[in-house]
Formats: sequence, structure tokens, C-alpha cells
Amino acid sequence: MIKIAIMGYGVVGGGVAYLCREKRESLERKSGLSFSVKYILDQKAFPGDPWADRIVTDPDSIFEDPEVSLVVETMGGITAAYEYTKRALLAKKHVVTSNKELVSHHGKELLDLAYRQGVYYRYEAAVGGGIPLLVTLREALAANDILRLDGILNGTCNYILTKLSYEDMRFDEALTQAQRLGYAERNPEADVEGLDAGRKLAILASMVSGEWVHPEKIHIEGISHIDREDAEVAASLGKELKLVSMLRTKKSGDKTQYGLLVAPVLIDSEHNLSIAQGVYNAVQITADPVEDILLYGPGAGALPTASAVLGDMIEVCNHEWTEERGEQWTDLKEDRLIAYGDQEVRALIRIKSGLSSGDLSSHLRDLGGFELLESPLEGEELILTTNPKLREGRLESAISELPEEYFIRVLRLLD
Amino acid sequence: MIKIAIMGYGVVGGGVAYLCREKRESLERKSGLSFSVKYILDQKAFPGDPWADRIVTDPDSIFEDPEVSLVVETMGGITAAYEYTKRALLAKKHVVTSNKELVSHHGKELLDLAYRQGVYYRYEAAVGGGIPLLVTLREALAANDILRLDGILNGTCNYILTKLSYEDMRFDEALTQAQRLGYAERNPEADVEGLDAGRKLAILASMVSGEWVHPEKIHIEGISHIDREDAEVAASLGKELKLVSMLRTKKSGDKTQYGLLVAPVLIDSEHNLSIAQGVYNAVQITADPVEDILLYGPGAGALPTASAVLGDMIEVCNHEWTEERGEQWTDLKEDRLIAYGDQEVRALIRIKSGLSSGDLSSHLRDLGGFELLESPLEGEELILTTNPKLREGRLESAISELPEEYFIRVLRLLD
Repeated sequence: MIKIAIMGYGVVGGGVAYLCREKRESLERKSGLSFSVKYILDQKAFPGDPWADRIVTDPDSIFEDPEVSLVVETMGGITAAYEYTKRALLAKKHVVTSNKELVSHHGKELLDLAYRQGVYYRYEAAVGGGIPLLVTLREALAANDILRLDGILNGTCNYILTKLSYEDMRFDEALTQAQRLGYAERNPEADVEGLDAGRKLAILASMVSGEWVHPEKIHIEGISHIDREDAEVAASLGKELKLVSMLRTKKSGDKTQYGLLVAPVLIDSEHNLSIAQGVYNAVQITADPVEDILLYGPGAGALPTASAVLGDMIEVCNHEWTEERGEQWTDLKEDRLIAYGDQEVRALIRIKSGLSSGDLSSHLRDLGGFELLESPLEGEELILTTNPKLREGRLESAISELPEEYFIRVLRLLD
Repeated sequence: MIKIAIMGYGVVGGGVAYLCREKRESLERKSGLSFSVKYILDQKAFPGDPWADRIVTDPDSIFEDPEVSLVVETMGGITAAYEYTKRALLAKKHVVTSNKELVSHHGKELLDLAYRQGVYYRYEAAVGGGIPLLVTLREALAANDILRLDGILNGTCNYILTKLSYEDMRFDEALTQAQRLGYAERNPEADVEGLDAGRKLAILASMVSGEWVHPEKIHIEGISHIDREDAEVAASLGKELKLVSMLRTKKSGDKTQYGLLVAPVLIDSEHNLSIAQGVYNAVQITADPVEDILLYGPGAGALPTASAVLGDMIEVCNHEWTEERGEQWTDLKEDRLIAYGDQEVRALIRIKSGLSSGDLSSHLRDLGGFELLESPLEGEELILTTNPKLREGRLESAISELPEEYFIRVLRLLD
């Protein structure tokens, strides 16, 4: 009997409690483990909850109880979660979390602390919800070099973009609907500005490189400026819009560098990632030697995410801690990340009609050539695509030469 | 330094040797392990091979060498592989295999033996090549009940069916091309008759149920009777043909039963599984609580499969054996599998034109109703679909009532 505590009784914490209660027998049969939830830490009261009697408001009761060997942190946010996670680790308790904000911002310190204490800090549920993504990187692909990763990792954005593409909605309508259905927060900034997708990419990049990548090191563009017309342009080209977290590995001699970017991109409607519609997530990984792998599933939701937490709990409790299995991220080496301006991209640019072709060519000289496409909004705007290996810096400088009143949007193309 | 032996220096064994040699540094950096291939067992000589000096023809040199702690079995087939695997386990060496035929036919005995010896017998590479399928079932979904699994697990068949669907080829042409490209064996029977897909389903069913399911317990239909006209019918309905290994879990009270079937089915062109084209594999898993997960990747090939072998090698060497982590399959309980005739299906039936509608209804009475669809081969044949929950037994008896000269084909529909 493994006694655990759950810190944070919200959607995911509630899901973990539910599974520990309702799936006890099948969990025990399948894993050989029996989990007993001794404490649930939350400042709110939950009258009528089947486990109302286990709710505590004082975290010390958890840290000071030697019976508790594992703590689930599903509080979200940083301040309190950070402090309580450290105290749980200091008390030599394993910690399993779904908190991507905390892992991306303080992962190195918390992993180091766990390592020194000889306990696990695990975070499968922080990226991709119920998709077995981190375990795949950690175990199944242990013999592989990750060359490239493209992930649709934010269900809220994907839901909104799906609505723009397939139901002809405007951004505001789609967001309101996502909020009404509980897919988006009242304050949707972290989702629609791409911060959540950026945190997840930061965690993936840290795992892949073994060096701590803070989300601030990543160029992040969200989808709040995207609207139906972008989806129309995409559709006219047989493509659709996705917010994609991208990792590219570049090797030259002994040197390995990573290009990291979160941005709305156009993918071909036949692209594997297009199976992720609505709130679903999908990740395509290109690795050496395994080639292309795609993982798809529910990226959020109480029970899928709780299922990933349980997976970590079982993994942690079934494997005695050893130095080899303890994870650490070293400091990020200077020059490990490709500067944003040096990343290569193929872009699509929407420009209002009215410029002469001579003016256009002269303004956009820095693109080193482009191709004009037919626009579904003919007469109103031009669409052009750049060479496939354009540096972001040159794209930026070309755009800055364009008279502001003509510029509509840059969208990147995923090959 | 972990000394290993590779038994069978074919495609996959060669891939494992290649990775151990060419990826030594990155393997060591990522896993903390260093593998040294001490022996390669093969009856053939490999003059000029970089490791020609490690090739042995006498297996005893491996079993009797106390330095060797892990043996990779990539021989394929049963007779010798079975004997050598047993002897390796008896000598207390871990065994990692890609041999689905052996695992499906003797898995219980070999897992039992490994368990008694306190070593691992692992087989990730036996199902789905480079796709992290077994590790997902074993670890990531440890807290889940598997409700349903649909797998495209045979690349040869999927290649042939893709060619029928998209390049208007006939079966024989597609098979010949697959053979020329090395995707099909000279004797393609195990692939095109569905035996390979059946073995893989048997392994998955054994893992999911914890009880040993011999491939003979599974109703298996291959694709050798399928041809271009079936693909045309599929396309006219917005569907495509796939050979799918299916598992359905049925719970009634405390009783859990599994329906297992391998058959060519029609899937909607928008179905997630349709991303598997050519030799690629894909598996969709519906589980409680995680809902739908899809895994996609290369189901065969030297390096993808060798990557899965390496994943197992790392997993085995980084986790001291414990009773909890040792896997065993118990005997299959009577009544655990739903009898073929009791499995439920929705079928599409192709019938030659000429029967009056009265005759048709009377012959097909056992279907309990059907719907006539428009056929792309109008005048020549009729297409009808059955109710969605028709028992296979009733389908069979309805077909047996139909005058033989009118019957063309039954294809099942995947919902």
C-alpha cells in the first residue's frame, strides 16, 4: 500500500483522485501496486466530495508524514507549487506533476534537488496530456538521435484554428465557444499567445538536449492575430492552419544545435499532423535511426491527463531510484540554440493589392526571390511564398521594408 | 561495458550490430550504457564485414561465456530460435527479440522460464517495428483498461492495398513490386494470408489480457483474394482497404471477454488509421480513461526495428530484474475469447447482378435486413451493407444461402 498526497484538487488532481478510488482493483491487478490517497491539499472545501475528509489546508501535514512516499502536484502556476514541490523533495518524497509552467521554469533546479535526495521528479502529464510522449523519448527512442519534432501541443489553439478552418468562424466566436465548452480559460492569454505551447517545447528541448532550455529562449508567436481570412488562404492552397511547436536539430561536425520556434503554420491537408482536429494533440518525431513516428491523442482533459500522472506514479513506484535513472539537465551551453534570425523557414506573405510589381520586388529584395500565388481574395490581396531556406532575419528585414499599410500577415509553411 | 551476443545476422541483427558500432558514443551519452558485441551467431560467413571476426557458428560459445549478459535473438522462425532462446535463458542471460513467430507460439513458456531464471525476455521489436507500442501498453497506459485496438501491423499487406487503391494496380502486380523492393518475401504467404498480422495480434492480446493467446485461436483472413475491384468499391464509398488486426474488449459484470479478428476492412478515408500508407504501420488504441491514442511509424526495416531492439536492451540493462517487473502470461481461461461466430460486425457484400430483389431478400434473410448501395460497377454487381451489429455466424449462414455463382466478396466495415 503506497500512501500518496495530491496537492491541488482541480481538474487533473480530481481526475487522479477519481482513478485511485474507482480503478483501485484494476490498477492493482495491472501494476501490482495499490495507491491510497491520504491527503488532498486544497484551500477550498469540497462538501459532499467522497474524499472531503482527506482534504487538508496545511501542507506540513503532508511533508511531515513519513507514511507518504509520493506527492502528486496538480496545483498549476508557480509560486506555491514551486515551494511545495521543493519541500516535498526535501522530505524525500517522489513528486509527479502535470505542471508545465513549473517544470519549464524551474525544471533544472527541481530535477537537481530530486537527484540529490535520491527521489524521482516526473512530468509526463505536463506535455501532451494522455499522449505517451515523454516515455517514448526517454525509453523507446533511447537509442535514437532526435532530428526534428513538430508538435500540436495546445488543444485550445487547435480547437480555435479548427473552427476557423472548418466552420467558417471568426477568431472571437471560436474563442468564446472554446471558453463556453471549458476548452479555454477565462483569461486565454497563455494559450492563444502561444506561451503554453512554448513551455511544452521548452520541456521537450530540455529532455532532448539534456540541457535546460528556459521558455524565454524560444521565439514564440501565438494565434491571436490569426483570423478566418488566413484559414481561407490556407484552404485555397489545400492547407490548414496549426499552431506548431518546432524543434530542428542541426549537426555540423561535433557541434549540435537546436532551432526552436512556436508559430502558426500552414500544413498540407494530407500531412500526418492534420489528424489532430479540435482539442486533440499530435506530435511527429523524426529520429535517427527510427525515422518518422507520430503520436496522437487527447492533449488535455481530466482523465487523460490523470492517466499520464498514474503512469508516472506506477513507473516511479516500480523502479527503485538509481543514479542512472535519475534525470538531470545541465546548464544550456552558449551557442546551443540557433539564434532566431538564423533559423530557416519557408514563409507565405499576405500583402494588400496596390503595389506595382517593381515596387514589390524592390521592397522585398531581402527575400532573394519569391513566387506569387493565386489568392482566393483576388483583387484585394497578393499571396507570395519565399524560398524554402530563407533565414528568419531576412524575412523580418524584408517585411520591415514593406510599407506598413500593405502588410497583412506572415505565415510559415511546414514541409 | 555490457557484452552481448547477436543470434541471426540478417536484416534486423545487422541493424543492431550497425547501431552498436556506429552509434556507440551517442548511445553511451544518452543511456549511460556501453554495449560491446562479442559474438554474432550465424551459419553463413560474412567476408569483408567489419565484424567478420566476431561471427561464430557454434551457439555454445555464447551460452558458456559468463561475460555475455544479454542475447539478441533476430533469427526469425521457430525451431533453432526456440532452442537457443531457452538455452540463453537457462544460462541466465537476458533475451531481447524481434521474433513475433516465436513470441506468439512459445511466449508463455519463454516468459515463465525467464521469470524463474530472474532475467528479462523482451519483444518490443516483434510488433510494430519502430513504433513504441508495447512500451506504451506496458508503461504509459499501465493505469488504463484497453477497450479496443485496431492495428495496421503488416507493412507488406498495407503496401499492396495502397497500390490497389492509389495506383490502380492488380494484386499480382503490387505483390511483384513489393517483392522487387524487398517489402515482401519470395514466399509471401505469411504476410498476404494474414498470419504475420495474426501473430502480432496474438502477442498484443496476450499482453492486454495477461493470458496467453495462441495465434490459432484467432480468426484470420488475409488479402490474397482482394483485388482492384474491391479498392474501386471502397473508393466509391469514400473508403479505403486496410488489413486490420482488431481487439475488442467486452465486459459484462465481472466477466471480461475479448473479440479478436484479422481481416481486410474498409475504413473511411478520413479515419485516423488512413495515415498509414505504403509500408507504414499505425495502431489506434481506445482505453479507459485515456480515450483514443494513435501511434504511427515504420513497422519494419532494419534500423527502425533495430532501434526497438536497442530500446529494450537499454530498458533491460537499466532496470535490475525484480519479480514485479518480470512478465508472465497465465493460461488462457476458457470463455475468455468471444467465439468467432458471436463477434459483431458490419459487413459490405458484393453480389453479381441477376437475382430478383425477392430472391435476394429471401437468400439473405439471416442478415436481418440490409441496405443496397450504389455500385461503381452498376449493372454488373450489387453492393449491400448489413446492420452494424451483425453476428459473424449469421453473416456466414446468410452467405451460405446465396447461390455460389452470385457471391463475390464480403468486406467488413470499420466504424
